[in-house]
Amino acid sequence: MRLRDLGEDGLIERIRQRFRNSSILVGIGDDAAVLDVPPGHSLVYCSDLVVENTHFAQGMHPADSVGYKAVAVNVSDVGAMGGIPMSFTIALAAPGNLELAWIDEFYSGIERACRDFDICLAGGDTSSAESIFIDVSMVGRVQTGHAVLRSGARPGDRIYVTGTLGASALGLELLRGGQKEHAAIRRHLYPEPRHRVGHAVAGLAHAMIDVSDGLSTDLTHIIRESGVSAKIYRDRLPAADGASDMHVMHGGEDYELLVAAPELPDEIETVRVRCIGEIVPSTAEHQILLIDGASESVLRARGWDHYRG
Amino acid sequence: MRLRDLGEDGLIERIRQRFRNSSILVGIGDDAAVLDVPPGHSLVYCSDLVVENTHFAQGMHPADSVGYKAVAVNVSDVGAMGGIPMSFTIALAAPGNLELAWIDEFYSGIERACRDFDICLAGGDTSSAESIFIDVSMVGRVQTGHAVLRSGARPGDRIYVTGTLGASALGLELLRGGQKEHAAIRRHLYPEPRHRVGHAVAGLAHAMIDVSDGLSTDLTHIIRESGVSAKIYRDRLPAADGASDMHVMHGGEDYELLVAAPELPDEIETVRVRCIGEIVPSTAEHQILLIDGASESVLRARGWDHYRG
Repeated sequence: MRLRDLGEDGLIERIRQRFRNSSILVGIGDDAAVLDVPPGHSLVYCSDLVVENTHFAQGMHPADSVGYKAVAVNVSDVGAMGGIPMSFTIALAAPGNLELAWIDEFYSGIERACRDFDICLAGGDTSSAESIFIDVSMVGRVQTGHAVLRSGARPGDRIYVTGTLGASALGLELLRGGQKEHAAIRRHLYPEPRHRVGHAVAGLAHAMIDVSDGLSTDLTHIIRESGVSAKIYRDRLPAADGASDMHVMHGGEDYELLVAAPELPDEIETVRVRCIGEIVPSTAEHQILLIDGASESVLRARGWDHYRG
Repeated sequence: MRLRDLGEDGLIERIRQRFRNSSILVGIGDDAAVLDVPPGHSLVYCSDLVVENTHFAQGMHPADSVGYKAVAVNVSDVGAMGGIPMSFTIALAAPGNLELAWIDEFYSGIERACRDFDICLAGGDTSSAESIFIDVSMVGRVQTGHAVLRSGARPGDRIYVTGTLGASALGLELLRGGQKEHAAIRRHLYPEPRHRVGHAVAGLAHAMIDVSDGLSTDLTHIIRESGVSAKIYRDRLPAADGASDMHVMHGGEDYELLVAAPELPDEIETVRVRCIGEIVPSTAEHQILLIDGASESVLRARGWDHYRG
């Protein structure tokens, strides 16, 4: 059965049946969703695109991982503000001749993400298109005044990173090489956002970002926004098993958190947290110094640019 | 100059410079936007897709109208809940070889929409893709408990519609025929959402929806969700100048409001409001009876289905 056999109303009804959830005041099937934000909290919201043949390829990426990851990356963004994710909308454009099995598997990934992250689907939009486009928009809450920006890092702060780096880039390489089973492939397909850590450090962190474009690019965002420089130590970078220096320093989509704070514990919410360097004052320009034993070099942002590839 | 010459960071910086706005606590360029929802209000949020060659075609639709309309349709959705729109995110996927002039004109439309609707851009995402894909997600507020759903219509309610119907479908037909200047074309390209009316009737309306898929389809949504039937009178339908019966009854994208309420004034927020029929109890099924002089027929939903065309 193909998408066009079900039709738009049929698809919306199918999604609605699957995602009935009482925590949303008005859910799927009205003009908009309605949600209460608890007193003393501000709203956090963001949006992340997933495009066929840019972010995933049918045949290489299972449909449920496409759905799971589209939600997970938004959870990561809300977490990187110190927020708690609440619910989301999905805009899905797809060709009418797409197999309904793909759609069903895609929504299985969404369902699993809802369970894992304790959030719910509240609505969205559907359309036809020549290829598959997905946009997930998420709303969450943060205690008013406690949102952690990219711009708050100060000289003297230590730089921390959660978990390990490089697994996702390695996993993508393995997938492209035809492999199917590997811990790094699972990390690439079903990322584990660190939103619980992000929320836990909201009172302690001066600046925070999630590692979506790669350490070099995301740390560059923090130092530019904060008007500072950074020193990081190569031997402290927590490499995932099998990941190369390139994967660790420039590979994206790890969805770990990069935090500037005076002091963080070694473990938060059962996730290992490591100090990889410190924030230093800027001289001429805002830059990352990479200390490797006795040698020192400037680490330039070499993450992904969607338009340049 | 093409999009790939500017690059992703360049594009984000260009957008950020253009849309600096102090009413958003954290805006473009962080992981997520932060916004306060005033005490006593709930959050209203929605998302609407705009896909190249489905919703618009380069050469036929000016880029600024694509931007303007992407925002306007979300404003309409928030208004159809009785809410006040506050801010939005844009996810934009586009080919790297797209002329930057298109992007700049697109954001001119967004800017104009921000002014017209008193809202601001708060963030979003960008990606490359083989064709243009836009998703706008909007957040607004509604007094807690005052959101107007599709499901509240009761027998005895009158059915009201704002403005006129059919102009957008007529405008699209004229555009396709090669015309450029016509009031109906302007309505199609730059729709006027009735959010101020929607907000004004929030205390009076039992059910409300915006006419995005066409009167027959959108009234069907109300009667199905409310478990009622409807009678509408052909001679009361407010046809736009030059619009045919087909345009008026089934044409979509007018973004007028369709309201079930005991009684509404003839004019709200300078917009004409007309009673076109009434809500009646359902017998066997939920249906729309179209009264045309002495004859009575069943009006079936014949609006747009994206997957069936």
